[in-house]
Amino acid sequence: MARKRIPDCSIARSLDEVGEWWTLLIIREALFGKRHFAEFQRTLGIARNILTARLRALVRHGIFRRAPDGGRRRAYELTDKGRDLLTVVLALRQWGERWVCPGGLATELVDALDNTRVARLEPRSESGRRLTLADIRIVPRAHQRRA
Amino acid sequence: MARKRIPDCSIARSLDEVGEWWTLLIIREALFGKRHFAEFQRTLGIARNILTARLRALVRHGIFRRAPDGGRRRAYELTDKGRDLLTVVLALRQWGERWVCPGGLATELVDALDNTRVARLEPRSESGRRLTLADIRIVPRAHQRRA
Repeated sequence: MARKRIPDCSIARSLDEVGEWWTLLIIREALFGKRHFAEFQRTLGIARNILTARLRALVRHGIFRRAPDGGRRRAYELTDKGRDLLTVVLALRQWGERWVCPGGLATELVDALDNTRVARLEPRSESGRRLTLADIRIVPRAHQRRA
Repeated sequence: MARKRIPDCSIARSLDEVGEWWTLLIIREALFGKRHFAEFQRTLGIARNILTARLRALVRHGIFRRAPDGGRRRAYELTDKGRDLLTVVLALRQWGERWVCPGGLATELVDALDNTRVARLEPRSESGRRLTLADIRIVPRAHQRRA
């Protein structure tokens, strides 16, 4: 595939690392506490060979690291790079909640401190203005900003 | 695949709609102005048969609609559901910018009003507290919030 021709690498190369169907589901489980092969396997109902391949790729990409776990089992821990996928998972979740699962989700996310709900992610400018698609422009990075 | 067993539908069903490798790239192009088959094809370097299949699925999922375009070509327009994927695309972009493309991206996103940069998306609670992964808890939706 001529992925090279894509001018801006970020989305394309991100999808190279996390774009396989199961990958973001495995990461979601890890973000919310799962650590062991058997836990991922049981929760997701994913075939063992696929889970093995996905975990191996995620370790190779530096999203998971293998961690000793006392006993004979080894655990998978998210690295900082992996934990930073929280925003991607939350963005997908809120899109799905609005458009794909109209009956609503069985769970919600809250701030552990006071049970306040997690707010929807909203694009804003650095000065705080809420942005819709029509407000956003792509410019070359070298562009001199007037602001 | 036993996708049914996944307890919370949102991520899984979202990925059923937008989880194919090319799909979010096509949507990114559409978010930033591309409308025609030939434009998607040229910019992404995607095989015509794959692009045809992806566009057809996206129309079926209500993410694109076919729109008349004066001439013989038909355009693809994002629906509200499709435009709401902006947040997912921005989240992937910022993750990629930080972790996958360390040399930086060729472009940046700015507020068209004053060229202020688009801010990073950050999980917050509805009361405005900035949240890390450790702050977030999953609770059943029926859960009575104390706040």
